[in-house]
Amino acid sequence: MTIEVAVPATIANLGPGFDALGMAVDLYDRFRVAVADRAAVSFTGESAPELNRISLPLVLRAAEAVARRAGRDAAFAIEVHLTIPVARGLGSSAASIVGGLVAANHLLGNPLDRSTLLEMAAELEGHPDNVAAALLGGVVVVTPDGGGVRAGRFLPRLDLEIVLAVPNLAIATEEARALLPRTVSLSDAVFNLSRAALLVTALLTGDAALLPAALDDRLHQPHRAKLLPGFAEVVTAAGEAGAYGAVLAGSGSTVAAFTPPGRAERVGEAMRQAFARHSVAAEVRTVHVDTHGATVRA
Amino acid sequence: MTIEVAVPATIANLGPGFDALGMAVDLYDRFRVAVADRAAVSFTGESAPELNRISLPLVLRAAEAVARRAGRDAAFAIEVHLTIPVARGLGSSAASIVGGLVAANHLLGNPLDRSTLLEMAAELEGHPDNVAAALLGGVVVVTPDGGGVRAGRFLPRLDLEIVLAVPNLAIATEEARALLPRTVSLSDAVFNLSRAALLVTALLTGDAALLPAALDDRLHQPHRAKLLPGFAEVVTAAGEAGAYGAVLAGSGSTVAAFTPPGRAERVGEAMRQAFARHSVAAEVRTVHVDTHGATVRA
Repeated sequence: MTIEVAVPATIANLGPGFDALGMAVDLYDRFRVAVADRAAVSFTGESAPELNRISLPLVLRAAEAVARRAGRDAAFAIEVHLTIPVARGLGSSAASIVGGLVAANHLLGNPLDRSTLLEMAAELEGHPDNVAAALLGGVVVVTPDGGGVRAGRFLPRLDLEIVLAVPNLAIATEEARALLPRTVSLSDAVFNLSRAALLVTALLTGDAALLPAALDDRLHQPHRAKLLPGFAEVVTAAGEAGAYGAVLAGSGSTVAAFTPPGRAERVGEAMRQAFARHSVAAEVRTVHVDTHGATVRA
Repeated sequence: MTIEVAVPATIANLGPGFDALGMAVDLYDRFRVAVADRAAVSFTGESAPELNRISLPLVLRAAEAVARRAGRDAAFAIEVHLTIPVARGLGSSAASIVGGLVAANHLLGNPLDRSTLLEMAAELEGHPDNVAAALLGGVVVVTPDGGGVRAGRFLPRLDLEIVLAVPNLAIATEEARALLPRTVSLSDAVFNLSRAALLVTALLTGDAALLPAALDDRLHQPHRAKLLPGFAEVVTAAGEAGAYGAVLAGSGSTVAAFTPPGRAERVGEAMRQAFARHSVAAEVRTVHVDTHGATVRA
């Protein structure tokens, strides 16, 4: 039996929600997985070979971790169809990890529950916000709790379009993390915690008027902006074109703007032009909140 | 015409939501206010004289600020009926300020809108979380935005009982604030911002299983605990007796525990005994979320 698992792209570090808030969007990597006769894997796929080389070992490692955890002796054949850009802050490695976990768990008869998969995913990925959003869909709030991860999840009660401006520029998560200070002022901590709470309030009550203030951040974006020429101007351009606000997706390089319905095209063009003024070529696409997370199709 | 304004007590600095999250509860100060013939005030009331001496000047100052802002020459006669304990972290001064503002605004024909009242209240009080909750009711999220205050507001979708253990011990807000550090670690900032977002998620989705983790805090309570003998033990006792968690109300001295329906009595008794083991006498009462904020009765 071969199954296909579709896993959404994710925007982590959402605005003020550094290391805490993630959102899944309707742009998917697809993984076709079968249990193989013996301990071997076969790699085939239609995606660009360089993407496969990044994704396949992650999928395989995740699938094998499920078999090991479940005490099963299984091998897997994997084929990937990738559409999430790599190293652009959209959770492509999280998608591969979640794809491998969910596929293997399904093929083995679901020996592991969702919270176990989430903990394994967070461990394989190194942080939980992308993998939680990829697994669960919607908007997730994650927090370390004891040795594990506590995750809340909800669907926004706001009709949002999300404009992704994806620059032709890769940013390594490790490099972006190294730019962050170890300590912050109490007032910046309060700035972000009040906005993280306000962002959840805006999304769950549907009070869009709160979004512009709620998307602000002082903890990560100001430090990381130096890796991305034109970041501040792109955010400003998005706002002037009618977006509620715009944020760095993950640690970049994608900038994600949130707009009311009907404004996405104008906002996207304004972002593309703002990047171009800084000699950055960016592809623009409009997406929406994914509502299901990783899904299995037999 | 004499009107009566009822204003709820409020729990600010709610768990991880230092300077950001406030909750109104159904315990009220009442203010009977009339426009007086001339620029004079008359103070009468049934409350303890020492409480009146704290409250009345605040009510009057707030009422006169409304008249001034509205360009009106008016004086007020005020009578107060106070039940919110003073200097116990339950927003008694916020209640007096909001009472004066709302009463005067009503008596003058509502010249000022709600957001103007909120900004005036925040300025008179010095911080916005208590006054926003007292004015609006429910749960509020406040954040500084430009020169003003941005406030989100919602009603929890959870059936909560709130147990207040009110020690016979006053804590001055200024003293409590002086104990806070100016800088915090990035990981503590993330600890609180993720929990502030999780707390709003728990309250708005009704996912009570998130509450124990969501009520945790590293930014203010650990530093302020030294002003309140037995604080950690009271929180532990509340949890062991069945509460989701417990927090310092405002800057104390009240400890507020959140419980599912039917557990309040046991939780309250456990908190009272835990305080008693530290030679602190505490009065216990059960309250609920106030849903209306300041209300006017003609």
